[in-house]
Amino acid sequence: MRVAVVGVGQTKFDEHWEKSLRDLSTEAGALALRDARIDGRDIQSLYVGNMSAGRFIGQEHLGALAADQAGLIPIPATRCEAACASSALAFREAYFSILSGQYDIVMAAGSEKMTDLKGTDAIATLMGAGDQEWESAIGLTFVSLYALMARRHMEKYGTTREQLAMVSVNNHRNGTLNELAQFPKEITVEQVLKSPLISDPLRLLDCSPITDGATAVILVSERLAKKFEKPIWILGSGQASDTLALHHRKSMTELLSTKAAAKKAYEQAGLKPKDIDISEVHDCFSINEIIAIEDLGFCEKGKGGKFVEDGKIAREGEKPINPTGGLKSIGHPVGATGIRQISDIIKQLRGDYGKLQVKDAKTGLALNIGGSGATAVVNIFGRDKPK
Amino acid sequence: MRVAVVGVGQTKFDEHWEKSLRDLSTEAGALALRDARIDGRDIQSLYVGNMSAGRFIGQEHLGALAADQAGLIPIPATRCEAACASSALAFREAYFSILSGQYDIVMAAGSEKMTDLKGTDAIATLMGAGDQEWESAIGLTFVSLYALMARRHMEKYGTTREQLAMVSVNNHRNGTLNELAQFPKEITVEQVLKSPLISDPLRLLDCSPITDGATAVILVSERLAKKFEKPIWILGSGQASDTLALHHRKSMTELLSTKAAAKKAYEQAGLKPKDIDISEVHDCFSINEIIAIEDLGFCEKGKGGKFVEDGKIAREGEKPINPTGGLKSIGHPVGATGIRQISDIIKQLRGDYGKLQVKDAKTGLALNIGGSGATAVVNIFGRDKPK
Repeated sequence: MRVAVVGVGQTKFDEHWEKSLRDLSTEAGALALRDARIDGRDIQSLYVGNMSAGRFIGQEHLGALAADQAGLIPIPATRCEAACASSALAFREAYFSILSGQYDIVMAAGSEKMTDLKGTDAIATLMGAGDQEWESAIGLTFVSLYALMARRHMEKYGTTREQLAMVSVNNHRNGTLNELAQFPKEITVEQVLKSPLISDPLRLLDCSPITDGATAVILVSERLAKKFEKPIWILGSGQASDTLALHHRKSMTELLSTKAAAKKAYEQAGLKPKDIDISEVHDCFSINEIIAIEDLGFCEKGKGGKFVEDGKIAREGEKPINPTGGLKSIGHPVGATGIRQISDIIKQLRGDYGKLQVKDAKTGLALNIGGSGATAVVNIFGRDKPK
Repeated sequence: MRVAVVGVGQTKFDEHWEKSLRDLSTEAGALALRDARIDGRDIQSLYVGNMSAGRFIGQEHLGALAADQAGLIPIPATRCEAACASSALAFREAYFSILSGQYDIVMAAGSEKMTDLKGTDAIATLMGAGDQEWESAIGLTFVSLYALMARRHMEKYGTTREQLAMVSVNNHRNGTLNELAQFPKEITVEQVLKSPLISDPLRLLDCSPITDGATAVILVSERLAKKFEKPIWILGSGQASDTLALHHRKSMTELLSTKAAAKKAYEQAGLKPKDIDISEVHDCFSINEIIAIEDLGFCEKGKGGKFVEDGKIAREGEKPINPTGGLKSIGHPVGATGIRQISDIIKQLRGDYGKLQVKDAKTGLALNIGGSGATAVVNIFGRDKPK
């Protein structure tokens, strides 16, 4: 049994003072339905990824809320959560629900409304993704956890401060083409290096922003896929876990969860890293993109910084990474990001993504990470139906 | 493809001042492994139901946390949430993941640590299950929502205050036999009627308590089930949604979500209400058990109160409901309850549940409800392998 994605929807990622979480979710769902040219009544089940609406806006029970707002009652509606990897999990559960034979057409969505809380409260809420007893309680924040990883990577592999900056520069350059991005502005290495120090060595322009936004995709069974114009196929999917607390891990310069998830996804897809045309990876902080490039097997461990410096990740490079702008430029509404990445891969593989189109993209990979890597999800997609 | 449950584990439900959420989760998981006589390394994927650890204890990312604590890394770990129905959803996703062919042996777990917050904050947190904009914001709490349903049921169908009390009396009577129950004490109708008024007509002893606890079950594919001693089979599973806000519904005396979920589960099981030997239903407030009895088709709509008064729901009655004590006596750690209900059905169907055993129980049903009914999940189990 094969499963395809036939519709995608994304709100603008932004500070949406005039829209609530339910407005954003409904908008993304409606866009996905319109994209697939189907009616809401065709949807048989709904999966929603959201990290922390309980704390951001005092609202749990996000599955039923989304079904309610979208007029999809009484279909089943299930919220999945794994911090910033929440919607990639929702996507996987939607995929499994079709593979299981229970449904033929399912919506997977993601949402987060982060700006209703003031900044420091938002940072505290985000630390719910880390280890409350070992990390949050002593004042660690995510930028400081990733700063530890960055410092270790620099010491162990000679990764430079400039190479970190080049990650952000590349993402912002790509994001200038993206109408849905929160910060579609070019930046320079010098600007990154002069931006305020947040947690040494990471600076403001190494960090993805706080964002409101929602996303949705529609998955269908093989049987139904033939009715749609440009179905994009799921070739492989992997998910893995690691310790919540960073200090419990053997290594601070790689994510074992990414490696395990990627291994599973590559095996299922029958592909190797060299076969992947484009990737959306989780650049919540610049260092994470470098680690991701290595852990996904695009280059040798420790050579990620050089890989970036050599321009290989550029849109026109040999391994385009985050060709639509990444979390850094597009924004990072945590529960929505996983499906935003998938949605961008789908649009690229359809081959009609306008200014954002990467030439000849036939296979694409999305890597969504929760917390400092306690969850990683890798999904691989293809333009051609797998045998 | 058939799926069976082969292991169950539950901590005592209580105020656990000396144990954290992670302690409780690990304990329940270990008990389920021991019950199934397998090793943690045999588990291929983990699903965790939890409603609101983000607000109760400042911790999201519960899937990875549980995998971490239990030493199950790097397997996939997915948290599901639908308020008080969270762990029934985790159970269903575990079921689907096996049906999909991805895994052969999966753990589904549930947990909630509620007593770390003071009472009023816990009540506010629980209202995350309701509609934040239409209900929580104007001060409605869950007891007041269910009080509205109770009042309407009394006016429309003549359900009496005493009949509501009899629900609690029956559950507490059953709970005296349950070593894991938070309140294993008999109560009388008079005591219920004299207990403090919380939200007219509901009194303190109509309400399930605030509780800490965790639960876990192990599901296996048909292929593996033969290796286990007393596999109990999943015969049918249904899930449905309704509006989050009570006032948006056509009726306040029935839950359309329960009806839709039950219809699906009965159809899949090829069973009718009369074929169900025992049930665990969601008696978060006494009125909800009466509505559940009706919506599940055990009696005509409006006759639930009489059904209770006639003693049909007693352990030795014609339709034993909550024979292990219900949420009222056992306690209601919201994210753990769905799998606690399933676990109790499994133990009954195995036929060796000691003092709690209901005679000749061959089929059992668990109804888990989220919020005021925006989510309902019905799972039906059988001792005999379905054809």
